[in-house]
Amino acid sequence: MRMYDIIMKKRDGGELSKEEIEYFVYNYTKGNIPDYQASALLMAIYFKKMNKRETADLTMAMVNSGETIDLTSINGIKVDKHSTGGVGDKTSLVLGPMVAACEVPVAKMSGRGLGYTGGTIDKLESIKGFSVEIPMDKFIENVNTVGLSIVGQTGNLVPADKKIYALRDVTATVDNISLIASSIMSKKIASGTDAIVLDVKCGSGAFMKNKDDAFELGQEMVDIGTALNRKTVAVISDMDEPLGFAVGNVLEIIEVIETLKGNGPKDLVQLCLSLGSHMLILGGKAQNPYEAEKLLKNIIENGLALKKFKEFVMAQGGDPSFIDNTNLMPSAKYIYEVKSDKEGFVEKIIADEIGIASLMLGAGRETKESKIDFGVGIVLNKKVGDSVLKGEVLAKIYANTEDKIAPCNEKIINSFIISDKAIKNKKLIYGVVSDKGIERY
Amino acid sequence: MRMYDIIMKKRDGGELSKEEIEYFVYNYTKGNIPDYQASALLMAIYFKKMNKRETADLTMAMVNSGETIDLTSINGIKVDKHSTGGVGDKTSLVLGPMVAACEVPVAKMSGRGLGYTGGTIDKLESIKGFSVEIPMDKFIENVNTVGLSIVGQTGNLVPADKKIYALRDVTATVDNISLIASSIMSKKIASGTDAIVLDVKCGSGAFMKNKDDAFELGQEMVDIGTALNRKTVAVISDMDEPLGFAVGNVLEIIEVIETLKGNGPKDLVQLCLSLGSHMLILGGKAQNPYEAEKLLKNIIENGLALKKFKEFVMAQGGDPSFIDNTNLMPSAKYIYEVKSDKEGFVEKIIADEIGIASLMLGAGRETKESKIDFGVGIVLNKKVGDSVLKGEVLAKIYANTEDKIAPCNEKIINSFIISDKAIKNKKLIYGVVSDKGIERY
Repeated sequence: MRMYDIIMKKRDGGELSKEEIEYFVYNYTKGNIPDYQASALLMAIYFKKMNKRETADLTMAMVNSGETIDLTSINGIKVDKHSTGGVGDKTSLVLGPMVAACEVPVAKMSGRGLGYTGGTIDKLESIKGFSVEIPMDKFIENVNTVGLSIVGQTGNLVPADKKIYALRDVTATVDNISLIASSIMSKKIASGTDAIVLDVKCGSGAFMKNKDDAFELGQEMVDIGTALNRKTVAVISDMDEPLGFAVGNVLEIIEVIETLKGNGPKDLVQLCLSLGSHMLILGGKAQNPYEAEKLLKNIIENGLALKKFKEFVMAQGGDPSFIDNTNLMPSAKYIYEVKSDKEGFVEKIIADEIGIASLMLGAGRETKESKIDFGVGIVLNKKVGDSVLKGEVLAKIYANTEDKIAPCNEKIINSFIISDKAIKNKKLIYGVVSDKGIERY
Repeated sequence: MRMYDIIMKKRDGGELSKEEIEYFVYNYTKGNIPDYQASALLMAIYFKKMNKRETADLTMAMVNSGETIDLTSINGIKVDKHSTGGVGDKTSLVLGPMVAACEVPVAKMSGRGLGYTGGTIDKLESIKGFSVEIPMDKFIENVNTVGLSIVGQTGNLVPADKKIYALRDVTATVDNISLIASSIMSKKIASGTDAIVLDVKCGSGAFMKNKDDAFELGQEMVDIGTALNRKTVAVISDMDEPLGFAVGNVLEIIEVIETLKGNGPKDLVQLCLSLGSHMLILGGKAQNPYEAEKLLKNIIENGLALKKFKEFVMAQGGDPSFIDNTNLMPSAKYIYEVKSDKEGFVEKIIADEIGIASLMLGAGRETKESKIDFGVGIVLNKKVGDSVLKGEVLAKIYANTEDKIAPCNEKIINSFIISDKAIKNKKLIYGVVSDKGIERY
């Protein structure tokens, strides 16, 4: 087999065999195939696409490129959740305790963020004493006893994806649905999960800018899951404004606690109920969304979700006192109110721009080496649909360096699109894709 | 400017600006752009094509990537000739003396062959004492005194092409008309010529397998020439059988001498008259093909073409005695007759296969380091259209190693397609492309 022939076959619109895909993934990961041949193939795939069979084979070849996690010693059906990422997205931290409290085991490996804000792992590290690096046996033990553990990715999971993604990133070959879907799904499958709930976001703050693309990506991932015997459901949700109010690590942890106490922002709560329902159904704890949502609402109301969060924090060495007194968490030196210079209704809050503003403050990483400033960030005061008076507070900036405040203030003001007309109720969830097909709301 | 944006622009079907093309060519040649980005761009160009403006800009950017030859001190209009390559193609060696004898200066830089047989330079090196490496001032002096000089490519001409071609060759991005055309034309333009006659071959023995592709390539190169102010004419000719009878270095030199004496194979003579006519017209020595052909035929008949060849050989240090006695040239130890096992008419002689047979004998290079065996090769005895009896000689093998004869014999027999029916007169020249348009014969 020769890489040249594989490139030419795909270039000419051919269907790559399982063996050809495995040959490429194995040898590229090993360093036997040079980057320039890999990038030519990726560009040919960009133009000629991959069918469902090829995409599933690519996913499995990537899974097999490195280690995989064996979670069979965890009792019950393990359901993992993945989000394609957005600004203010703290759903995993709300869902984990909610679902675990409903007795669906959650064994989650999560990445660090490289972008606007930290990832789930970074947010957890803003908790005093909390360790995201615990040995595999302890991780499994925690899931069996507590029902929930979240750790940083360990071991050499899907090295092919790391290498291929890095190459796609610099050769304009990221935007291909098969490559995106196989990248996400390979990591989930290598992590040893039985079933997967995907939160596919669309809008200005997300990777998929429009609904059709988001549904297509959801379908592609569900197809991969189905082909590889992992029940998969994709929820397509809006990211045309940040999720919830808080953007920034400690600020988001505080919002998570509030949400688990029953005081969460409407959109965050709705999304968690939707994603959580699918997790309960896949985990065999509910028959239908109605029953599942009832269980989830109840687990918040009776305080068991918050209790589970506390158990989870303690099991990973965290000091839980901040849960009852969030003032104990690191906070910012300066709090600055961003005031509106117009009046009207909030039509849109450009999530991207809010993300960049939070990055400017230090809440995220510009490079792999950047250190995150846990206390900083932005808390929105207005959301889409809200009315605004001139001089009213749109958001609060939490900063540790005074000179970041002015440019950040300007960015936030510009990201609020204020309209004269009242805004119709905006949808948060556009639909669901599962092996039963697409359901649009 | 960022290479990433250039890749994405072309991927999305955009037209690259002159500056973007120059940025890519300059920085890739300098090693500032990695191979994997270049190959992604080349694959995007494969799919999205380049328009005439982009192709002309690419050609000039490649010309400017290295040194260029200044031929302004040569009197008259310099006309260069280039062939896309075929089996048994010795036209340059016939045309050079013919055209020079008609007072159109021929200053030719030629490459060594990597393929079935040697290139023009290798064939000339089979002449005792002949030097293909002479200093630039001597080269120019020879053209001004003799009218003809042929040397190996010197200096750092079009380094961008060397690097880009090597990458295309391993990433399945060779087959794009803009990339092929700019590669050829950049080398011609860097060599300092005023006008260009192109011999674009099509058929089994050529790079372009069919007529339409060959006309398209001709058109593309004429368009580049026109855009860059070099009068360019492309002759589209057949390569469904080897050109002439001889394939192999010394064997071809002997055929060249015979042709200059007026005893050339019909197809070789016809092609040389056609290409030569265009060279005389572009060189300002004839008004039309009729007049030009008359001049060329006359120059053969009156012996001036052969005399010019002798002067040319001597001016580059060659011993001309072989011209009067070709037995003085290196010859092969074994001469073996390939006999037909069928009777009928020759329908086709698969040029590729004859080429491979000659390579097996040692007439060409398998790798850059291979040493050419000048005396070996194949001389056809039958050409397309000829009748053949069982046991009649199809070709003669000239070999220096006995064990090559049997496999070579088999290859030659298989490459002769013998039909029951008489073969209609086959066309040698399909047409001409110039700035006046396409003329099909």
